[in-house]
Amino acid sequence: MNRLGKLKNKILESNIDFLIISDIYNIRYLSGFTGSEGWMVISPDTSYLAVDFRYKEQVKTEVSDCEIVDLTGDMNNWLIPLINDSKPVNIGFESDNLSFSIYNRLKSLLTKEDNKVKLLPTSRLVEDIRMFKEPVEIDNIIKAVDLTDRVLEYAESIISTSLTEKQLSWELEKFLRDNGSESMPFEIIVASGINSALPHARSTDNKINLNAPLLIDIGARINGYCSDMSRTYYPGKADETFKKVYDIVLAAQMTAVNIIESGMNGQEADSVARTVIAESGYAEYFGHSLGHGLGLLVHELPRLGQNSKDILKDNMVFTVEPGIYIPGWGGIRIEDTVVMENGKIRSLSTANK
Amino acid sequence: MNRLGKLKNKILESNIDFLIISDIYNIRYLSGFTGSEGWMVISPDTSYLAVDFRYKEQVKTEVSDCEIVDLTGDMNNWLIPLINDSKPVNIGFESDNLSFSIYNRLKSLLTKEDNKVKLLPTSRLVEDIRMFKEPVEIDNIIKAVDLTDRVLEYAESIISTSLTEKQLSWELEKFLRDNGSESMPFEIIVASGINSALPHARSTDNKINLNAPLLIDIGARINGYCSDMSRTYYPGKADETFKKVYDIVLAAQMTAVNIIESGMNGQEADSVARTVIAESGYAEYFGHSLGHGLGLLVHELPRLGQNSKDILKDNMVFTVEPGIYIPGWGGIRIEDTVVMENGKIRSLSTANK
Repeated sequence: MNRLGKLKNKILESNIDFLIISDIYNIRYLSGFTGSEGWMVISPDTSYLAVDFRYKEQVKTEVSDCEIVDLTGDMNNWLIPLINDSKPVNIGFESDNLSFSIYNRLKSLLTKEDNKVKLLPTSRLVEDIRMFKEPVEIDNIIKAVDLTDRVLEYAESIISTSLTEKQLSWELEKFLRDNGSESMPFEIIVASGINSALPHARSTDNKINLNAPLLIDIGARINGYCSDMSRTYYPGKADETFKKVYDIVLAAQMTAVNIIESGMNGQEADSVARTVIAESGYAEYFGHSLGHGLGLLVHELPRLGQNSKDILKDNMVFTVEPGIYIPGWGGIRIEDTVVMENGKIRSLSTANK
Repeated sequence: MNRLGKLKNKILESNIDFLIISDIYNIRYLSGFTGSEGWMVISPDTSYLAVDFRYKEQVKTEVSDCEIVDLTGDMNNWLIPLINDSKPVNIGFESDNLSFSIYNRLKSLLTKEDNKVKLLPTSRLVEDIRMFKEPVEIDNIIKAVDLTDRVLEYAESIISTSLTEKQLSWELEKFLRDNGSESMPFEIIVASGINSALPHARSTDNKINLNAPLLIDIGARINGYCSDMSRTYYPGKADETFKKVYDIVLAAQMTAVNIIESGMNGQEADSVARTVIAESGYAEYFGHSLGHGLGLLVHELPRLGQNSKDILKDNMVFTVEPGIYIPGWGGIRIEDTVVMENGKIRSLSTANK
C-alpha cells in the first residue's frame, strides 16, 4: 500500500474526518513536494496539497496524486473551504509540529460556524509510517552511507596538523558535494583534543592536534535521504588512555550492533551499549542516547535511549553511536548507520573502525 | 540597554512573572548560545538558560550573563523547579514557536499544584527587539553583503553554457565558503530559462541557457548573520522582452529603495514597487512580497508585503526584491539587502544591477 493509503487507514481508525498536515518533511514524504512551505489536508477520500505562488510550477512536476490548492492569504481563504462542505466533526492536526498560535487560529475558524467541530491533537501518525523504510528509501540511505565511507577514507588520507578543524571540515564537505551529495544534513563536526569532549562540538580555527583524539561526525544526503557516521582518530602515536577508551567504545558499539534485535525497545537497545561502558567504569561519560532513526531528516524515529519505548523492527534505519567524553581530555565516538533486517542489525557502513 | 534588559522591560510591562523562550534563534540572540537546542526562562530578576549534556562545555565559553541549568529528562525535572518557588501567576510562552504538545505538557505541569497559574501566549516579544539591529549586527550583515557582492562579480566572470545550474551554484558556494562564509543561510538559487520563472527554483542538472534569463539568488553568513541578494543576467545577447521586463523590475527596485522611508508600514512599502510593476501591466506576475527583514535568520521581521502592518524604522535591515515571473519564459528578480538609516534606505550592496 502506498504512503497516503497507509495514512488514510490510520485516519479511518482514529475516526478523523480530516487530518491537517503541517510538518514539511511529512508533506514531502507523502506527496513528493520538496518546497519549504505547504500544507496537506487529508480525508479518507481526498488529498489536498496547498502551496503558494512560489511553488505553483514546481509542484506540477513533483506531485501527481494530490489535488493542488492555492495557498493564498489567511487559512480562512483556502483551508476552511476545503473542509467545511463535508460537515466534518473530527479534525486532526499534528500536535508535535503545529504552533500554539496556528492551533488557536484554526480553532477559532473551525468552531466559528459549527461548534460540533472538534480539533483533535494527533502525534506521530505520519512519523510512525516514515519509521519503516521502503526499499527505495533504504537504497538512497545506502548511497549516502557509501559516500560517507568514502569521505572518511579521504579524511584519513589528508588529516594533518597543518589544517585547522574548520579547514578539514570544509575539505570533507567539498569532497561530499563534489561526489554527489546534496546540502549537508547537519554541520560536519571535526573536533580535535579537548574540543572532542563536546558531543556536539563546533569546528574551530584551532590546528589539529597530533597527540589527541580527533573526532569526525559527518553525513551525506542523496535524493533527500541522510547518512550519519562518526569515527575517532589519533593522528600521532596513540597513548594508553586513547587505546583503552577507544577499545571500550568500540566494544560497546560492536556489542550493540551484534546484540540489538527486532522486538527490543529503544531503552533496551540503549542499555546494551550503556552496560558495556558502565562496566568499564565510564558510565558518567556517556551522556547522550545510543542512537536515533534517520531518513529525510537526520533525527527521526525510532529513538534508542533511556526513556524510549519505540519497538525496533525490520526496515527501520537508525544510528548506533556510543561515546565516552572526558572533559579536559577529549572524546571518542563510533557511529554507524544501520538497518534492521530479518530481526538483526546490518551495518550499512564498511569504514574502518 | 542590553538585549536581556530590553526584554525584561517588556516582561514587566506585560505583567509576566516568567517568560519561557523556546525559539532557538531568540535564545542565541539573548544569550550568545549557538547550540541547536535549549530553553530560556526569564523573569524580571533572573535569566536561566537550560542546555543538555551535549552543550555543557560549549555553553561555558559562549554565555556569561545567564544562570546555566542542566536540561535533563522531562520539563518536570528542570523547568518546574526554576519557576515554582516564587509562586508565579502569569507565565508567558512564545505562541508562534511552541508546539501544541509542549504547550499542553507545560499547562498540565504548571497548573497541577496551583490553579492560579495562567499560561499566557505571547507573540514577537523578542522578535520585535531583534528587528532593530545593533551596530555590531549591522557590521556583520555588511560583511556578509560585501562577500555576496564579490561572489556575484565572480559569477559574472564564470557564467558559461558549459555549466549546469547545479555546477554553477556549487562553484559560487565554494567561493563564499573559501572566502569566510559560514554555512549557506539558504540554498543558492541558480535558475536558467523557464526555471527562473519559479521564484523559489531549485537548481537543476540542465545546462545554462545562452538565450534566456539566468537568475541567481544567494547569501552569505558571517558570525551568524545573513545576507540575501538576487541578480538576473542574460548570458547571450539580451532580447527585447528581457530588456523591457528587466527595466521594469529595475525601476521598481530603485523606486522602492529611493521612496521607502521610515514611518511607512510594510504594506505601503510593498505598494511602492508593486505600483511600478502594475502600471507596466505585469501586476499578475509579481506574486510574492517585496521583502523581509533578515539577521540571524534570512527571514525575520519586518515584513514588506501586502498585509504587513510592521512600521519601518531606523536600524531595520531588510531586502527589497521585486520580481516578474512569466511561466514558460522565465523570471527576473533584483534584490538588495538594505538598512534604514536617518529615515531613508541605504543599500548595503554595490553589485551591478
